Amino acid sequence: MKPVPAERSRTVKTSLVLPPDTNQHGTIFGGKVLAYIDEVAAIAAMRHSQKPIVTASFDSVDFLSPVKEGDTINIEAFVTWTGRTSMEVFAKVTSEKFPSGKERLTATSFVTMVALDENGKPAPVPPVEPHTEEERELYQTAPERQKQRKARKKNWGTGNG
Amino acid sequence: MKPVPAERSRTVKTSLVLPPDTNQHGTIFGGKVLAYIDEVAAIAAMRHSQKPIVTASFDSVDFLSPVKEGDTINIEAFVTWTGRTSMEVFAKVTSEKFPSGKERLTATSFVTMVALDENGKPAPVPPVEPHTEEERELYQTAPERQKQRKARKKNWGTGNG
Amino acid sequence: MKPVPAERSRTVKTSLVLPPDTNQHGTIFGGKVLAYIDEVAAIAAMRHSQKPIVTASFDSVDFLSPVKEGDTINIEAFVTWTGRTSMEVFAKVTSEKFPSGKERLTATSFVTMVALDENGKPAPVPPVEPHTEEERELYQTAPERQKQRKARKKNWGTGNG
Amino acid sequence: MKPVPAERSRTVKTSLVLPPDTNQHGTIFGGKVLAYIDEVAAIAAMRHSQKPIVTASFDSVDFLSPVKEGDTINIEAFVTWTGRTSMEVFAKVTSEKFPSGKERLTATSFVTMVALDENGKPAPVPPVEPHTEEERELYQTAPERQKQRKARKKNWGTGNG
Amino acid sequence: MKPVPAERSRTVKTSLVLPPDTNQHGTIFGGKVLAYIDEVAAIAAMRHSQKPIVTASFDSVDFLSPVKEGDTINIEAFVTWTGRTSMEVFAKVTSEKFPSGKERLTATSFVTMVALDENGKPAPVPPVEPHTEEERELYQTAPERQKQRKARKKNWGTGNG
Amino acid sequence: MKPVPAERSRTVKTSLVLPPDTNQHGTIFGGKVLAYIDEVAAIAAMRHSQKPIVTASFDSVDFLSPVKEGDTINIEAFVTWTGRTSMEVFAKVTSEKFPSGKERLTATSFVTMVALDENGKPAPVPPVEPHTEEERELYQTAPERQKQRKARKKNWGTGNG
Ligand SMILES: CC(C)(COP(=O)(O)OP(=O)(O)OC[C@H]1O[C@@H](n2cnc3c(N)ncnc32)[C@H](O)[C@@H]1OP(=O)(O)O)[C@@H](O)C(=O)NCCC(=O)NCCS
Ligand SMILES: CC(C)(COP(=O)(O)OP(=O)(O)OC[C@H]1O[C@@H](n2cnc3c(N)ncnc32)[C@H](O)[C@@H]1OP(=O)(O)O)[C@@H](O)C(=O)NCCC(=O)NCCS
Ligand SMILES: CC(C)(COP(=O)(O)OP(=O)(O)OC[C@H]1O[C@@H](n2cnc3c(N)ncnc32)[C@H](O)[C@@H]1OP(=O)(O)O)[C@@H](O)C(=O)NCCC(=O)NCCS
Ligand SMILES: CC(C)(COP(=O)(O)OP(=O)(O)OC[C@H]1O[C@@H](n2cnc3c(N)ncnc32)[C@H](O)[C@@H]1OP(=O)(O)O)[C@@H](O)C(=O)NCCC(=O)NCCS
Repeated sequence: MKPVPAERSRTVKTSLVLPPDTNQHGTIFGGKVLAYIDEVAAIAAMRHSQKPIVTASFDSVDFLSPVKEGDTINIEAFVTWTGRTSMEVFAKVTSEKFPSGKERLTATSFVTMVALDENGKPAPVPPVEPHTEEERELYQTAPERQKQRKARKKNWGTGNG
Repeated sequence: MKPVPAERSRTVKTSLVLPPDTNQHGTIFGGKVLAYIDEVAAIAAMRHSQKPIVTASFDSVDFLSPVKEGDTINIEAFVTWTGRTSMEVFAKVTSEKFPSGKERLTATSFVTMVALDENGKPAPVPPVEPHTEEERELYQTAPERQKQRKARKKNWGTGNG
Repeated sequence: MKPVPAERSRTVKTSLVLPPDTNQHGTIFGGKVLAYIDEVAAIAAMRHSQKPIVTASFDSVDFLSPVKEGDTINIEAFVTWTGRTSMEVFAKVTSEKFPSGKERLTATSFVTMVALDENGKPAPVPPVEPHTEEERELYQTAPERQKQRKARKKNWGTGNG
Repeated sequence: MKPVPAERSRTVKTSLVLPPDTNQHGTIFGGKVLAYIDEVAAIAAMRHSQKPIVTASFDSVDFLSPVKEGDTINIEAFVTWTGRTSMEVFAKVTSEKFPSGKERLTATSFVTMVALDENGKPAPVPPVEPHTEEERELYQTAPERQKQRKARKKNWGTGNG
Repeated sequence: MKPVPAERSRTVKTSLVLPPDTNQHGTIFGGKVLAYIDEVAAIAAMRHSQKPIVTASFDSVDFLSPVKEGDTINIEAFVTWTGRTSMEVFAKVTSEKFPSGKERLTATSFVTMVALDENGKPAPVPPVEPHTEEERELYQTAPERQKQRKARKKNWGTGNG
Repeated sequence: MKPVPAERSRTVKTSLVLPPDTNQHGTIFGGKVLAYIDEVAAIAAMRHSQKPIVTASFDSVDFLSPVKEGDTINIEAFVTWTGRTSMEVFAKVTSEKFPSGKERLTATSFVTMVALDENGKPAPVPPVEPHTEEERELYQTAPERQKQRKARKKNWGTGNG
């Protein structure tokens, strides 16, 4: 399959943080952030593979700064690397405060998506063609992360999650 | 502070999987599962600390089996271990299919919650008192997981997520 | 059909009370509580009958104490008794306030669910096998409540609802 | 306080039944219907009393016919009678099927709403002035229903709901 | 096709304005108002045509006064006029403030809905029979508005929207 | 006030179209599209003015092609021109179909947003500095559109919407 430029899968979603998304301190729930990441990563993976996809895993996510009601939250994601049927998607979450427009980093995350065929079985995906420096760095470091994920899944069930 | 039995924070949430929670294959979004885990882990941490809390991080999550529209999804969580202001919460997600009632494991996850004082600053929490075998095992293996989280957060920004 | 222990259908759902669930006083809407009861009772009935179900009726519900934003609300339900195709489900709603963890009773309710076959017609369900004292008491008093429901439905349309 | 015509509190809400409101058979959840009734009854009680209100109780509700995705559901409610601080609201739920426009009765319900003062304590409300035949009949039969509600609330806790 | 009285399509929806519907000032989003108008206009068009429908266009909407959390918002709509397959729906949005019950006009809007056959192609609809003065005035002025819409759609793409 | 480049307010939101957003044909509701436009235009206006804002009006919107469940919908908006306190925002809605990734134009719209001061009164905003050809064309044609909006608002109430 013909390589697809990383740029082609780049997806952006900006949203206002509203009361149902927030706790008693008026800051967004971690779960809401993860749900946004999943949606944007899914669209990036669909754009790359042109196939239906499912979420296989999330790598760890550190929430670095709170996002308040009335702020905007921005999620940006693209496919960094692929296996045979899986895609690694990198997602970056920032927030913007008003007034000031100051942008802060909220979290980053690697999500693995798997493409499916009509029968719901894993289906092959085209490779990624990285262009920018960030795209290339993430492309090159991906196989090492993938190895760690495989090891982690094997350990699973031993209480080491 | 007086230790709190792990049992005291145990929280259960069972839900029907409905159309808005599902993709084109009629299976639940990964992001919806993570949002459920966050809510249940937050309640467990509030029950343990009797303080407002925020989500500091999610460890990696592997989605082991799809959950379909019309199934139920069950999240169960409790506080396994604490630092000074942080609590490690273990969450287990299962699903039940109808008819059959067959239960399957969907995912497990460790979430770190931090208690806050009135000014939104990290606030001390009581230790955990484990009783069952599962509670004891998770209690004993927690410091090692915590060390890995600290290392991971330090590396953050290097593109190794 | 083989009797099913009441325990088998027991279902628990704990949720955080969030802004969209609350009125100007910051307390939960009665309608939201009833929607939670319906969901949990439906799952209990599915677990008992292993069949699709519909809600046939709600007995009266008294709301005994308000539940505030930031509290948790807990619904617990199980099948108490069955007719040929209908199941009586008992649901108990409590709330927990933070900080304090003090639990209060919000409401109790009896919901009648009916099992359906593939054609959407009422389908037989197995009987209940009560074990605890509470399960036995509710089992024994159920036929009397069922009689009242039948009388009530006959009167319906006379403005005595 | 000057009596308020029943007409003044009459409130109507028509909605499309959408996928998130429905179960696997594509029919609306009982809990969704009850949540609609509560919202419309609350508005009727606010219109009558011009005060904030809370839901004190729902009388029993029988669901007479299913409502399908794509149908419309119509709730109509008005205040029928008042005590010192409480208002009885009658709500009628119908549905309309397309194509055909055939209207069917789904449920009726009596909801008791209590007006509150600034401190959240029960506050006096004006009496109802019934005009139409339906309004007069419901007005006259209300004290008897109110008596039954008081008896029911006293019995509450005995497992007779 | 037999003309249908404008009255037959008249549809009313009253709702409480809740936190998720509002911005940082506690006033409803314009987009929420437009979504309500679309739902009510769609039901009016279904009642008139007894066919599935889609929204073809919205004429301009001016938001005349803010609606606050805790107010009610009322949408009323009916079909004013029809082409071969299209229906013009007039929608009027008012709000009510508590306490006071004072009603204010929020917006008015003309929405064009198109009826569809089983293949999703535009399908003929019956004409409108206006009775009241308002219905007659809107009926008579409709062809002129329709002409402007056609001109507008032709210009579309020139940046004159 | 110092002019702000149009680029600075540019806002993008991409979303998956899910069952709750769609009608019986599985295509998105017009009202949902308008709600998305309003959210994205509001963020663009906040980014430009660094002030709280309200929606003053929507110009007419033609829905050119349906968007199906499983497609993505993309909204892109930026501030084109300003008056003293008002901002004209241009929004473009496209959709993407899978598999194929084919993009189609769904709608375009001009929304007017007004900046507010702490007392909720209209507050001055900086001018726009257009750079690209599209930005310049929309900037130059804006005063004419603004004149039509003023005329339209004056006529309002005469049934000419
Ligand atoms: C979580 C947060 C309060 C920590 O703040 P901080 O300035 O790092 O505070 P400290 O260094 O004093 O750390 C407090 C505790 O949190 C722990 N912690 C901080 N970051 C962590 C992480 N990513 N994972 C696990 N534990 C973490 C620390 O180890 C420390 O634990 P201890 O008191 O038990 O030893 C802060 O990062 C924050 O507000 N993040 C956003 C939280 C949020 O809003 N989440 C929802 C979605 S954005
Ligand atoms: C409703 C509530 C305010 C009543 O409080 P209370 O201490 O019982 O007050 P009172 O005894 O003074 O009763 C006030 C009125 O409510 C009526 N009332 C109380 N409980 C009732 C019930 N379950 N059903 C019908 N009427 C009821 C009383 O008869 C009295 O009516 P009157 O003034 O017309 O004679 C209180 O029970 C409450 O706050 N419940 C929770 C309400 C709520 O939050 N509901 C939403 C979901 S939990
Ligand atoms: C509306 C739609 C079916 C019209 O299709 P079309 O190929 O233009 O069909 P036609 O030219 O035969 O027009 C059918 C009728 O719609 C009217 N119409 C079409 N576009 C219109 C518009 N923007 N505003 C008002 N009326 C319009 C035509 O005037 C014609 O009316 P008539 O039969 O009463 O004379 C098509 O544009 C469509 O599917 N749009 C998307 C609808 C949608 O999904 N909306 C929700 C959000 S995207
Ligand atoms: C928008 C609003 C603040 C304007 O108030 P106003 O008393 O008309 O204020 P002004 O006459 O000073 O007008 C302020 C600016 O808004 C513009 N404006 C007012 N109504 C407008 C309309 N319908 N369309 C476009 N611009 C409009 C004026 O031209 C003026 O622009 P300028 O300062 O750039 O010259 C007011 O009508 C309002 O609050 N509406 C409700 C807004 C809302 O809540 N929307 C969401 C859903 S209801």
